[in-house]
Amino acid sequence: MKSARVVLSVDIGGTKCAVALARTDGEILARRSEPTRAAERKPEQVLAGLAAMAREAIADAGMAPGDVAGVGVSCGGPLDRERGVILSPPNLPEWKAVPVRAFFEEALGLPVRVENDANATALAEWRFGAGQGARHLVFLTMGTGIGGGIILDGRLVHGANDLAGEIGHQTILMNGPVCGCGKRGCLEALASGPAIARLARDSMMYGRHKRVLALAGGRPADITAAHVVQAAREGDPFACQILEEAGTYMGIGIANVIQILNPERVILGTIAVHAGDLILDPIRAAVAEYAWERSRQVCAIVPAALGDRAQDLAGVALWVED
Amino acid sequence: MKSARVVLSVDIGGTKCAVALARTDGEILARRSEPTRAAERKPEQVLAGLAAMAREAIADAGMAPGDVAGVGVSCGGPLDRERGVILSPPNLPEWKAVPVRAFFEEALGLPVRVENDANATALAEWRFGAGQGARHLVFLTMGTGIGGGIILDGRLVHGANDLAGEIGHQTILMNGPVCGCGKRGCLEALASGPAIARLARDSMMYGRHKRVLALAGGRPADITAAHVVQAAREGDPFACQILEEAGTYMGIGIANVIQILNPERVILGTIAVHAGDLILDPIRAAVAEYAWERSRQVCAIVPAALGDRAQDLAGVALWVED
Repeated sequence: MKSARVVLSVDIGGTKCAVALARTDGEILARRSEPTRAAERKPEQVLAGLAAMAREAIADAGMAPGDVAGVGVSCGGPLDRERGVILSPPNLPEWKAVPVRAFFEEALGLPVRVENDANATALAEWRFGAGQGARHLVFLTMGTGIGGGIILDGRLVHGANDLAGEIGHQTILMNGPVCGCGKRGCLEALASGPAIARLARDSMMYGRHKRVLALAGGRPADITAAHVVQAAREGDPFACQILEEAGTYMGIGIANVIQILNPERVILGTIAVHAGDLILDPIRAAVAEYAWERSRQVCAIVPAALGDRAQDLAGVALWVED
Repeated sequence: MKSARVVLSVDIGGTKCAVALARTDGEILARRSEPTRAAERKPEQVLAGLAAMAREAIADAGMAPGDVAGVGVSCGGPLDRERGVILSPPNLPEWKAVPVRAFFEEALGLPVRVENDANATALAEWRFGAGQGARHLVFLTMGTGIGGGIILDGRLVHGANDLAGEIGHQTILMNGPVCGCGKRGCLEALASGPAIARLARDSMMYGRHKRVLALAGGRPADITAAHVVQAAREGDPFACQILEEAGTYMGIGIANVIQILNPERVILGTIAVHAGDLILDPIRAAVAEYAWERSRQVCAIVPAALGDRAQDLAGVALWVED
């Protein structure tokens, strides 16, 4: 690896925006964040806020923009990576074809790389987290959605128009529930946070899940995946069953990826980190059933390791070079 | 592309073995083939027969082994590509850990590259056939099995232990029919030649498929996918329905690959070539339903173009360099 340089990461999220000044060996020097407030602020205002935080973070670290090698922007897809344009991210409904690269090049006078958040986080886990040492790995978020990033032979897979890695939108059940993307039976509609909450709510009518309901303050509509994980941690059998069902779907989706790509590591974020073996066990059981032994015996399925640092390191990882 | 060299392709199949002397621009100079007779001959005898045919083909072309740049061996997986060892191909049940590269290096005194047949054919279609001009493509056989080869950014994807591309063994139906591989509901168990024949036989009991049955000489056990395709070509509605069902499963499997890899071309062999739009139409309809518009609009789904030349050019393609 080349000697560490200082870069600036920019994370544009649906609820929060953050910048971090960091070294390419992963050491964070300064950071700032603020709520995105996408409903009240136009994209240009959000970007101006990020540029202001960037200048502050650089000053906080006692540096000048000239000390920074580049800017790494991580944000929701779809996007046009070559042109550095955010197209129409579901988490920022007002954003249509926003030229983020041009904006930061102009505002900060630095070279800018733009990557979708799942890809950038895959790179970060590979460089700094649970993916270290692997050549072929797949990263999957398990949160509001199921995003994915694929690294083969040490290179991120982008595909023909930057849409590779949409592992959460493979079909697991032909006639399954409608997904947020409009298709039916996607993995995301069966194993994401909202899918787990829906599974819990759907079984309310049978009078089960008293503990999950209590954690949600008695309001079924307020149930989240976090309540299900919490109840499962306390040993609630119905909550464990929900995680087992979601984990089985997740395992089938992962088994398909193992059959198609033969990775040596699959890294799972968010719910897999919070729930641990409560969901990793059913995932691994389904992978054992739906992937070939010869393929799965070389593939470790592990939780993500970066936790809250992932969002800062995602943009940094775009500037790490071999 | 570098100037054309002469190479020798070796194709080791379950029913037939062939060698071809060819230029790396795809021109075939001489070829020989013989039945594999794997039940009667030991692997060493089969390999000795191939080496003898290789020497004959080189002589036929008025050349000497020294005029040949290398040998490209295409055979059924799984195999260890680095070591050049065929491990345990389902189409050659007696072959266990056969060191084909060492054999041909010794027998012919030439450098040898070994690749599984689906990968090698993917390369051949990319270099000489329906994949020309693409950077990201997926090739799928649709014959006895559904094998796959993936080329991303102009490079074959091998994975951690040479098992990438097993697209036919992704799960399409969780509780579907048992596949030859032992798993349940694999794409191969739903859309391969034997799967199409089974679909036809299974609906025999309802008294349908008289035309398919007639083509099979009145013996349900003798029905093959070729009979179904033939009857569909003649307009038999039940045969068309079978192809529509298999095509729908195939389309879901392809849609998953499009979501995961975002290729610009998907090339389908064998049955897709013979049946044409009778199966390509339902495949494309399912892809339209199960893949995102933004991903599928950049991806052409086309039949393979090399026909019988594929098996000769597979080994040749291993030696084509940019």
